[in-house]
Amino acid sequence: MEFNADFFIEILGFIAGVITSIGFIPQLVRGFRTKKLEDVSYYMPIVLAIGMTLWISYGILLSRIAIVVANSFGVSCSLILIIMKKKYST
Amino acid sequence: MEFNADFFIEILGFIAGVITSIGFIPQLVRGFRTKKLEDVSYYMPIVLAIGMTLWISYGILLSRIAIVVANSFGVSCSLILIIMKKKYST
Repeated sequence: MEFNADFFIEILGFIAGVITSIGFIPQLVRGFRTKKLEDVSYYMPIVLAIGMTLWISYGILLSRIAIVVANSFGVSCSLILIIMKKKYST
Repeated sequence: MEFNADFFIEILGFIAGVITSIGFIPQLVRGFRTKKLEDVSYYMPIVLAIGMTLWISYGILLSRIAIVVANSFGVSCSLILIIMKKKYST
């Protein structure tokens, strides 16, 4: 029973992680299509990437792989957003 | 010793939560200043708010208050961003 509850929680975490990770994709797609990211603040992806790196450490310490995977994907998306904004602003 | 490790992990989670929560603020400030959020995708805050709501459930089930607090703040910021974008696009 303990295992089942834990398994359910981890599945919930994975779904949450997948959805929050997917959240950045429409922004990347929009930026890629319009080639404009002027209204997007640089600090948002920078600060989020720092925070999500700390969430990765938290997930590792708690052995919660959902937290680690979701935030790793989030950090990657943030870095892509920073690079895209830099590229399109020149 | 067990308590100390757990306390340390929760502190780490709080710092991670504070930083990821702060991440949305520069975007809100920029939007408020420029009154322009055209380049920001609607789907980003919408999808993130759904995902973060699931993270809140995950945090409640694991009794990890850092996850609950950080994601509650994140959901609030996302909703403000959606309202601001709607307001400025009319």
